[in-house]
Amino acid sequence: MPKTGFILKEDQVTCWVNCEVTTYSTEIQVATKGELDIIDVTHEVEARVKSSGVSQGLVTVFCPASTAAVTTMEYEPGLVKDLPAALERLAPRKATYQHQLRWQDDNGHSHVRAALVGPSVTFPIVDGSLPLGQWQQIVLLELDVHARQRRLIIQVVGD
Amino acid sequence: MPKTGFILKEDQVTCWVNCEVTTYSTEIQVATKGELDIIDVTHEVEARVKSSGVSQGLVTVFCPASTAAVTTMEYEPGLVKDLPAALERLAPRKATYQHQLRWQDDNGHSHVRAALVGPSVTFPIVDGSLPLGQWQQIVLLELDVHARQRRLIIQVVGD
Amino acid sequence: MPKTGFILKEDQVTCWVNCEVTTYSTEIQVATKGELDIIDVTHEVEARVKSSGVSQGLVTVFCPASTAAVTTMEYEPGLVKDLPAALERLAPRKATYQHQLRWQDDNGHSHVRAALVGPSVTFPIVDGSLPLGQWQQIVLLELDVHARQRRLIIQVVGD
Repeated sequence: MPKTGFILKEDQVTCWVNCEVTTYSTEIQVATKGELDIIDVTHEVEARVKSSGVSQGLVTVFCPASTAAVTTMEYEPGLVKDLPAALERLAPRKATYQHQLRWQDDNGHSHVRAALVGPSVTFPIVDGSLPLGQWQQIVLLELDVHARQRRLIIQVVGD
Repeated sequence: MPKTGFILKEDQVTCWVNCEVTTYSTEIQVATKGELDIIDVTHEVEARVKSSGVSQGLVTVFCPASTAAVTTMEYEPGLVKDLPAALERLAPRKATYQHQLRWQDDNGHSHVRAALVGPSVTFPIVDGSLPLGQWQQIVLLELDVHARQRRLIIQVVGD
Repeated sequence: MPKTGFILKEDQVTCWVNCEVTTYSTEIQVATKGELDIIDVTHEVEARVKSSGVSQGLVTVFCPASTAAVTTMEYEPGLVKDLPAALERLAPRKATYQHQLRWQDDNGHSHVRAALVGPSVTFPIVDGSLPLGQWQQIVLLELDVHARQRRLIIQVVGD
């Protein structure tokens, strides 16, 4: 139920209505260190969700890029090496890419990996927090062949 | 248009405002039977969307776990075997995992598969229903190496 | 802040409240040309977001199908060939599929690929636009073995 209130003064009514619906848009800047750098952005996303003041809703973490991706994983040093090995099976660096033949930018495999992992993940916001699993972190995957300055857009809708 | 109404009584105004925006959060419990169990949760998600009373909006189905994933597929006994075969190509069970060398929990491949499939899918709610394809079901993939008790969070925002 | 207003006339108050929350649902029809046709739907999605009038919010692009998928990529002729090569590694056309043995519809690999790429992507709407990367387009992947008439549902929630 939305909160409402009134002030009656002489022949005027002043009304306030709090529909408690909020949209909140903010960005995180991430400097990646090079190809297959995996960055844990969980605390930053959680902080932005807190700043939004939203108690119940959705938050989308989106990377505006075609050679990076967003997912969740247990962020520990072993898996940080294992995930790249699987990406190499999916789109090997040494394979022939038509993208390379056309543009000579050496990152055909980066584009293919990014398209298959995907640019965004949407999370529930429950009681003002992200109900992540105990061993589940939100990560940005740098898939391009060199260090990049990345932006993540954190978009909240809720009440 | 939001619905509004008033009660005027002596010098007081009582107002109600229905902004018709709803956030609704609920959970499904799923007992999986073991590695590569695939569970059709479509009817359960549809029931929760109905309970929300939302007519138009979004629903995110999110698994708070790093060794399970959510996607859609035609849920039939053939594909329930074919999907695991592709996951085995992506992250073979017998490959060497740094996660295994560090933690000895025998599920490095589970983590990698989960990170690549992803923990959530977001669906439109149109006229109170999920406009799924005729042969499209919402599934939870158990990717860990043994049976688990899983939670799915069903988060609705709409009106 | 929601906009509110009043008309006082004799002993009656008429109130209007605009909560400025919008849900907007629309569809795009796409005629695909055959297996592994990749269609750039960015301009169409952007046009629908503009039509919604939403300034800040979320938009989900969802394909109601089990043999098609939605993702983002740099849409250029090289990558349009490179992405199918990776899908062939993930779920080769010539592999044995239980789906095929049961249903003889020759598209077991299509189903598996679609389940792994996923049926939807959610984007932020910021200042009425999609903040995509410079080389990032929204694409529909036709993964079935013949040309199909596809629907994409574009679902907006915001204000």
